[in-house]
Amino acid sequence: MDDLGRNMHDLCQELFPICRSITGDGFRQSLAILNRELPGLRAVEVPTGTKCFDWEVPKEWNIKGAYITDPKGKRICDFNVCNLHVMGYSVPINKTVSLDELQKHLFSLPSQPNAIPYITSYYKERWGFCITHQERKQLKLGEYAVYINSELKEGALTYGELIIPGESKKEIFISTYFCHPSMANNELSGPVVTAFLAKWLVGMKNRKYTYRIIIIPETIGAITYLSRNYKVMKSNIIAGFNVTCVGDDRAYSYLPSRNGNTLSDQVVKHVLKHLQLDFVTYSFLDRGSDERQYCSPGIDLPVCSVMRTKYGCYPEYHTSLDNLELITPTGLLGGFNVLKKSIECLELDETLCATVLCEPQLGKRGLYPTIGTKRRAPEIKNMMNFLAYCDGNSSNLEIAEKINVPLWELTGVIEKLKKESVLTSV
Amino acid sequence: MDDLGRNMHDLCQELFPICRSITGDGFRQSLAILNRELPGLRAVEVPTGTKCFDWEVPKEWNIKGAYITDPKGKRICDFNVCNLHVMGYSVPINKTVSLDELQKHLFSLPSQPNAIPYITSYYKERWGFCITHQERKQLKLGEYAVYINSELKEGALTYGELIIPGESKKEIFISTYFCHPSMANNELSGPVVTAFLAKWLVGMKNRKYTYRIIIIPETIGAITYLSRNYKVMKSNIIAGFNVTCVGDDRAYSYLPSRNGNTLSDQVVKHVLKHLQLDFVTYSFLDRGSDERQYCSPGIDLPVCSVMRTKYGCYPEYHTSLDNLELITPTGLLGGFNVLKKSIECLELDETLCATVLCEPQLGKRGLYPTIGTKRRAPEIKNMMNFLAYCDGNSSNLEIAEKINVPLWELTGVIEKLKKESVLTSV
Amino acid sequence: MDDLGRNMHDLCQELFPICRSITGDGFRQSLAILNRELPGLRAVEVPTGTKCFDWEVPKEWNIKGAYITDPKGKRICDFNVCNLHVMGYSVPINKTVSLDELQKHLFSLPSQPNAIPYITSYYKERWGFCITHQERKQLKLGEYAVYINSELKEGALTYGELIIPGESKKEIFISTYFCHPSMANNELSGPVVTAFLAKWLVGMKNRKYTYRIIIIPETIGAITYLSRNYKVMKSNIIAGFNVTCVGDDRAYSYLPSRNGNTLSDQVVKHVLKHLQLDFVTYSFLDRGSDERQYCSPGIDLPVCSVMRTKYGCYPEYHTSLDNLELITPTGLLGGFNVLKKSIECLELDETLCATVLCEPQLGKRGLYPTIGTKRRAPEIKNMMNFLAYCDGNSSNLEIAEKINVPLWELTGVIEKLKKESVLTSV
Repeated sequence: MDDLGRNMHDLCQELFPICRSITGDGFRQSLAILNRELPGLRAVEVPTGTKCFDWEVPKEWNIKGAYITDPKGKRICDFNVCNLHVMGYSVPINKTVSLDELQKHLFSLPSQPNAIPYITSYYKERWGFCITHQERKQLKLGEYAVYINSELKEGALTYGELIIPGESKKEIFISTYFCHPSMANNELSGPVVTAFLAKWLVGMKNRKYTYRIIIIPETIGAITYLSRNYKVMKSNIIAGFNVTCVGDDRAYSYLPSRNGNTLSDQVVKHVLKHLQLDFVTYSFLDRGSDERQYCSPGIDLPVCSVMRTKYGCYPEYHTSLDNLELITPTGLLGGFNVLKKSIECLELDETLCATVLCEPQLGKRGLYPTIGTKRRAPEIKNMMNFLAYCDGNSSNLEIAEKINVPLWELTGVIEKLKKESVLTSV
Repeated sequence: MDDLGRNMHDLCQELFPICRSITGDGFRQSLAILNRELPGLRAVEVPTGTKCFDWEVPKEWNIKGAYITDPKGKRICDFNVCNLHVMGYSVPINKTVSLDELQKHLFSLPSQPNAIPYITSYYKERWGFCITHQERKQLKLGEYAVYINSELKEGALTYGELIIPGESKKEIFISTYFCHPSMANNELSGPVVTAFLAKWLVGMKNRKYTYRIIIIPETIGAITYLSRNYKVMKSNIIAGFNVTCVGDDRAYSYLPSRNGNTLSDQVVKHVLKHLQLDFVTYSFLDRGSDERQYCSPGIDLPVCSVMRTKYGCYPEYHTSLDNLELITPTGLLGGFNVLKKSIECLELDETLCATVLCEPQLGKRGLYPTIGTKRRAPEIKNMMNFLAYCDGNSSNLEIAEKINVPLWELTGVIEKLKKESVLTSV
Repeated sequence: MDDLGRNMHDLCQELFPICRSITGDGFRQSLAILNRELPGLRAVEVPTGTKCFDWEVPKEWNIKGAYITDPKGKRICDFNVCNLHVMGYSVPINKTVSLDELQKHLFSLPSQPNAIPYITSYYKERWGFCITHQERKQLKLGEYAVYINSELKEGALTYGELIIPGESKKEIFISTYFCHPSMANNELSGPVVTAFLAKWLVGMKNRKYTYRIIIIPETIGAITYLSRNYKVMKSNIIAGFNVTCVGDDRAYSYLPSRNGNTLSDQVVKHVLKHLQLDFVTYSFLDRGSDERQYCSPGIDLPVCSVMRTKYGCYPEYHTSLDNLELITPTGLLGGFNVLKKSIECLELDETLCATVLCEPQLGKRGLYPTIGTKRRAPEIKNMMNFLAYCDGNSSNLEIAEKINVPLWELTGVIEKLKKESVLTSV
């Protein structure tokens, strides 16, 4: 399992240098790397201008290089050194400007003087450079040559989709986004953990549910995907997770769906509680990722987020400081495990009903002690408590919560009682 | 606004000396003074003996003077000095009695020796005088001449009614009572604040709701009014307030409806919370005014009370100490403002539904920043949160509560989003 | 009332020495003693082998004597000294064994070295002796003669049933178990308190409900009884109590039904709260008696337990230390009183509706003070609060809870208001 964390971190490292955005070759190239791990992953292209509810797919953006030459001829804000130096979706530019003029196009963070901020302008054509505040303060008066070798053109928005079929056409949905350039917790942790979950799911025996896994650009990708698939999604998805910020070591966090008590919410709360993880519960009002779309009125999918440290809640967020040192093998593994356990609980969940009235005679089946004493063993107590709620109206997950036992500790009991025909599926 | 508080206090002062009761000329004269401020206010007379559910309108009571002459010939308990000296609804009397006999007809408060208590006997014919306990203790043995120049006759019960029409026939109901003689917080504050609310409502542009405002004698007035109007009231009233004890400076209080969660309750709690007023929440079990009738089984109107210091909860209550010094311009203004804000929220409240699936593209409408950075401004966050709940099932007030923003701070956002056709009324 | 506690303790004393089990003459003999107090109590015999849901009635067990003779010829573990010395349902035995072999058949409690444990093996044929751990440690190497003069045969399971008819065929159900040998709190307190409740119920005037009282062997008795009666029970029983552990002086306890909020639960919580008894609330997960059957899926009777110190929660439980000193006349009386008060509340409970709109005019009926002053007396406040909730939808018990007054303090008010036709039964 330590290998798993290490392997995920290695994949993050491989993906880190690529300049991704909501469209373009960086996204395609990143997806191709995941495709190596997940042969079934399909890249879908949606042309610029395609209508998606109230939005339309923007032009495709690609960039080959960018830098500023300062009055002394020194190259600064070099895209090749750090792709965050260029504002995302910057239009091409190649001219000389005064420092005053340049300042209008610079972005820095006075409160984090060593960080290059992450800035984008997807829907208004602009150009800009991002710079540490420390470097910006040292800029001298004079002429600056600004150069951005980018291209905005009719093209496509790319996303990845992997459908892993199960016994049921009912689906569990996993969504993650892949549109950020060189940043690690937000966001490389999301696609990488998702890819390893997908590999595990592909190998799962007796998979009950179908899994719909998408790797998209944030916001416009979710809207685009929904506009093409929301009817089937609404009819089939029973639970879903938005996977983001699952790579650092500092915290676990839960952000509920709009409804707040969907199956996804129930399972995540059950898992976090019974794994005895300290975790922060956010409000849906604190949301800021694709649950904005998945939980919007009329869409209302049962999607929540379980994270390590939430976007917006750590100082390095959306800066060059969100780097490969921020995420760790154990951090990634922790994120992976909570999602895996949640999925295992969903697979274990069903609604059972007792086949006999009153308690069954379990002694004659070898499931109950034949000597009556002062105390019952905890396993016996859990079994009897589980049975007491199998009324055909409560799911295994709901019963596990009621009797305060992790669902995964009831697996053996459930199997035995079903085998003995004391319980039957509803 | 300071003027408003001062003007309300001045009107209290003008009304203070009049001897009101549940019937009679004092009530009519007081109503006539309010009529000067509110030309539409209509006085209605209901004849003695009229059946009103389980009750009937009592005889009309009027009084011209009353006093006791003590053994030394000194005049005490003079009605002209303080009308509280005479028990309300005292029958006429003119005879000489011993101190022993007199004591049976005297009322005083040992625990408040300087206060003249307020005592009534509406439904059993009696006579009585109210006196400070200090004065009572000094009465000497001897003969006392008691004189009450009152009259109990077939007449009428009077109440005031003002219907201010709005776009909708749905009504907001305001009830206040006007049957107490010279006392200020309970009760002159009620009719005076109500009169100024009515003036403001008459001048309100685009008034959505119809306003039913009644100024009645307590209990029998509410029962009488209901017996004549409850069917239309039950079908039209969406929210209502019993206005009482809104004049002092010490506290804010909320007394729920029997139901406890009507629209009136929701709006009052929202306003008190978001105006950040410290307030006392009473139980419906603590009720003692006309919500006793409005919330009775089968009537069940959505009526609650928002007050300054509640009746029964301040030492001066129902004594001569509840005087013009107890109420203040700022006290009255505070009571007025909470009710005004509550009404404004009701006028703002409606149920809206998003017209597009997923979040709308607000950037292209100039409502969303086109540069993506680390943080969103609070106004943007409030707008997005508001939108996230516009599912056609939640009222603006409910959403404001969910997103923890005062409804009145969302006015601009709501207008913009409706104008952009991103939201539509359900 | 002190007599009542004493009488109950005396009856426990009489019953204490008898060796009861889930079948056999000890049970019959004990029932015959109760029959003396309750002439209507009927003994029912169900033959060995009768199918009862997933179970069947076991063989009947009787025992005449048992002991071990140690290597020095000393008689130990003598059934005649304490019937707990023999494992319940031990098969007959008469042979000589080594100490090693004997140890496999001995039961003791290292943590309670002075206690003889209570051990049974109803559904697997075995023999065994129970011994204090202190005595066990002193056993020397050598030959031991073990002798159990018992009999396991085709026979019957016996239970007692008493139906006390009321005006309604709706039933209140009381169940207690009688299968333990010489132990006092668990369990003689149960059948004895039940017998005295039954005597009181037989003498009750105007009994509204029918009472179904059963005295059974635990578990198999409940299952047997249900298998023969559950349909009529499900259709008629509105509330029920499992009576056990009602004899000591240390605590009061409440164990809810599976549903948690049946009429039984409501009434017990009301009574314990308003008698101002400190009490422990257990979870249904802590259950261990016949509510296991009464509340099982598909049976779902409204049965909860109100106890003194709960089984399993006191050190003497299921040992020889649970003796006649553990239970006291005041302990038994306390258990009796809580159950009696609960039944009284059930008898008082009904749903009433106001016959007039608005508050009734109670002054003209002599029920309301005719002089209006600063305060209302608490009785008047309770009456008006009770009336305010008589909307035909709330039971008297629910209203008593809402207005925070014990239901039994409202008896007079309810009678007066019904007599005055201000309230009517729904």
